[in-house]
Amino acid sequence: MTPEEFRTAGHELVDWIADRRLSVEQRPVRPDVEPGDIAARLAGDPPEGGEDAAAVLADLEQLVAPGITEVQHPMHFGWFPSNAALSSILGDIASSGLSSLGISWESSPSLTEVEEVVVDWLRSLTGLGSQWSGVIQDTASTACLVAMIAAREQATGHNQAGSGLLGFGRPLHVYTTEEAHSSVRKAALLAGFASDDIRLIDVDPHTRDMQPAHLAEQMAADAAAGGQPAVVVVSLGSTGVTAFDPLPAIADVAEPYNTWIHVDAAMAGSAMLLPECRHLFEGLERADSLSWNPHKWMGTILDTSLLYLQDPEHLIRVMSTNPSYLRSTSGGEATQYRDWGIPLGRRFRALKLWYHLRIDGPEQIRARLRRDLANASWFADQIADRPDWSVVAPVRLQTVCVRHTPPSLAGDEEAVSRHNLDWVRRLNKSGDAFLSPSTLDGNWIARVSVGVESTERAHLERLLELLDYYAGDLST
Amino acid sequence: MTPEEFRTAGHELVDWIADRRLSVEQRPVRPDVEPGDIAARLAGDPPEGGEDAAAVLADLEQLVAPGITEVQHPMHFGWFPSNAALSSILGDIASSGLSSLGISWESSPSLTEVEEVVVDWLRSLTGLGSQWSGVIQDTASTACLVAMIAAREQATGHNQAGSGLLGFGRPLHVYTTEEAHSSVRKAALLAGFASDDIRLIDVDPHTRDMQPAHLAEQMAADAAAGGQPAVVVVSLGSTGVTAFDPLPAIADVAEPYNTWIHVDAAMAGSAMLLPECRHLFEGLERADSLSWNPHKWMGTILDTSLLYLQDPEHLIRVMSTNPSYLRSTSGGEATQYRDWGIPLGRRFRALKLWYHLRIDGPEQIRARLRRDLANASWFADQIADRPDWSVVAPVRLQTVCVRHTPPSLAGDEEAVSRHNLDWVRRLNKSGDAFLSPSTLDGNWIARVSVGVESTERAHLERLLELLDYYAGDLST
Repeated sequence: MTPEEFRTAGHELVDWIADRRLSVEQRPVRPDVEPGDIAARLAGDPPEGGEDAAAVLADLEQLVAPGITEVQHPMHFGWFPSNAALSSILGDIASSGLSSLGISWESSPSLTEVEEVVVDWLRSLTGLGSQWSGVIQDTASTACLVAMIAAREQATGHNQAGSGLLGFGRPLHVYTTEEAHSSVRKAALLAGFASDDIRLIDVDPHTRDMQPAHLAEQMAADAAAGGQPAVVVVSLGSTGVTAFDPLPAIADVAEPYNTWIHVDAAMAGSAMLLPECRHLFEGLERADSLSWNPHKWMGTILDTSLLYLQDPEHLIRVMSTNPSYLRSTSGGEATQYRDWGIPLGRRFRALKLWYHLRIDGPEQIRARLRRDLANASWFADQIADRPDWSVVAPVRLQTVCVRHTPPSLAGDEEAVSRHNLDWVRRLNKSGDAFLSPSTLDGNWIARVSVGVESTERAHLERLLELLDYYAGDLST
Repeated sequence: MTPEEFRTAGHELVDWIADRRLSVEQRPVRPDVEPGDIAARLAGDPPEGGEDAAAVLADLEQLVAPGITEVQHPMHFGWFPSNAALSSILGDIASSGLSSLGISWESSPSLTEVEEVVVDWLRSLTGLGSQWSGVIQDTASTACLVAMIAAREQATGHNQAGSGLLGFGRPLHVYTTEEAHSSVRKAALLAGFASDDIRLIDVDPHTRDMQPAHLAEQMAADAAAGGQPAVVVVSLGSTGVTAFDPLPAIADVAEPYNTWIHVDAAMAGSAMLLPECRHLFEGLERADSLSWNPHKWMGTILDTSLLYLQDPEHLIRVMSTNPSYLRSTSGGEATQYRDWGIPLGRRFRALKLWYHLRIDGPEQIRARLRRDLANASWFADQIADRPDWSVVAPVRLQTVCVRHTPPSLAGDEEAVSRHNLDWVRRLNKSGDAFLSPSTLDGNWIARVSVGVESTERAHLERLLELLDYYAGDLST
């Protein structure tokens, strides 16, 4: 493809993107497809001699785009807000267009240094102290794995350089809760910790926050049995019900064991942009690592997850490689982000944040987050006031967990659970809105995650009508 | 940013990208900056109230873009070809514009199924059998880590689900060579293998290919000592000198131990698109996993690395999570790529391949690879014919390793080594061309990696003149 062909096709594509954003509300939130449908539409080999970009765009429009769940739709309340601010998309396009290669400082000095700049902007905007250094990871899952491996090497005295985990004589324990994100357990297992050595600490039955007294008990028992409390993963704003584990009390327990403290604030970290929410993050200065995702509520397009560390030198020792063909000729003082994570090569992801923060500006981003908090609070109040409906977990930020109990089923927990899964599924299938069915104490509930960039109060009013219709319909 | 503002700014950005590609040859390959220069230019906070996209583009042009190494420049011969075909950039823009979320099949059915389609297109185009299933990873480093963890769990009988590595009584051995990519050792250590248990098998002194007789000896010794040969990483086309480890002979040795065979063909895998090169990849059907990077020589923009597996079900068991909020309501038959790797969330990376393969077409891609092979071969012949120059490793594909030995320094290995590092650095600093200095047997050489999309024969002719100038200049 020549630059001139690219120019023409690029203009058409940009128009298509702008038009799609303008018309998002006219489409169903969720596509009506079954597994295999899209692949069947795309059957056949790629054309040997190539084809026109216009033909590909036509297929994108007619075959591919109708098969995505429209997470930018204002009636999308599933999983978490997966916002993609248009300013950040522009930054992503700039990154693709620059086509630079991040394998060392030298391979693209700007790629490294813009990353240093934007990660520090966000450190400052979220009120973190200057002792934190950050790096962009693809996702919080990966950030958690990186932290787990760093913690493993701290606990074993950097044993990977010698006899490794196999040569370490004592069990290494991981502490978290059942409310923690699924990626925490996955990261622990991938890092080589044993399933047998993962401790799920009790949570408060109402808030689902970790109970530090139980943590203290468990750590003491493990240490007494010859184990090493290696890492505790603290959820600040869990995915499920926005649990906030009490970090200061956890740090009091963990510090005597020199246990690595990793804070997973993937979803809720955006709230640190609001000074009035920072009390929820009290004690952060006592953690070793922290990750949160601008690619969720804050609105920078995927994949933009931040990992901050208090001692990046430890991570660099764990992750470093230095073969001759990657050796920089520019001295040792440059940051080599390849030593801050798993992949060697990186895209210029910092431009997404640079564009987003510069064009939209922090003020507008904060105003939007405050709008969402007010909307979620308003929505929770409406639910609480409605007969047969209840808010089943504290609304700490923008997620509202709800359950409908039809009078005819009251008292039959299992039937109520089935009913809630059923109406959520039917609502989702309609394409009018999308919620995540979730479980709490083994029973199905519905999570309403407020915070898509385009979601206004009117959309929540519409959602209330839909809840009445889909939940009510079945119960009558 | 509104859709209409995005439309205007997007058009300007597309023009900027097209213009940059047209003018790439007018810029130096390597920027003349020192660590910290770019960050200093960008000092200051993001503007609270936001700013115009035009101001950001102006800074991109004046402050950021001059600080990248131009890996799309036809005189870039460093590291490896990090091609970004404009058609694949278009696919990347489409992905950003769709802004869909890949956390499950349900969150974006098209994202999953287009990936299945393109990964299968490339399986077929590279002559791999239909028993292989693939997935896109960000890089070969990550793919290697994923394979290492899968191998670890095969070797321990899925011990992560129980007492983990610590509970496994016997050493787990990793086999590779010193010629393997640095990411291999890193992946082994991150996966929890011990440095003490990594075996660097002897290589042929001329080709740097693994010597299977030494592998047999080492595996037998390790097994006799109570160890478990867990994984062998086979380089097919190494980064340094394009070594091809003899896979069939390695498989003969490894299979009796049930050792996982991972093939790293990150750089050279593109050659599998050419039937006349497939003999280099003989024995692939005996490997357990294979990764190669369309984002290198083939030309799809970063980050597009492929990982193929013969038994994806094993990987899924190792990587799987299934929390309630991610449970699909669409039955169990859909592919859930989150269980094929580390991150939960994924971008719609398949569109880069879909656009690239459809618009350029396999025929054009193959023709370009053949052009590069012919150019590298021609260049090696020119070097071999030149007094004082030598080709110091076999030219298996498109990388030519060269050394200059000035008559005045002949016999003084250390001085010759210094001389070669010196002229490469001076050439790189000039911005006229870029080569990777590399070491072979402890001495500096220069690697000329041919294969940037825009590199034609005339650019190699120009490179010969530059070699004469920079190497000759110092030696006279």
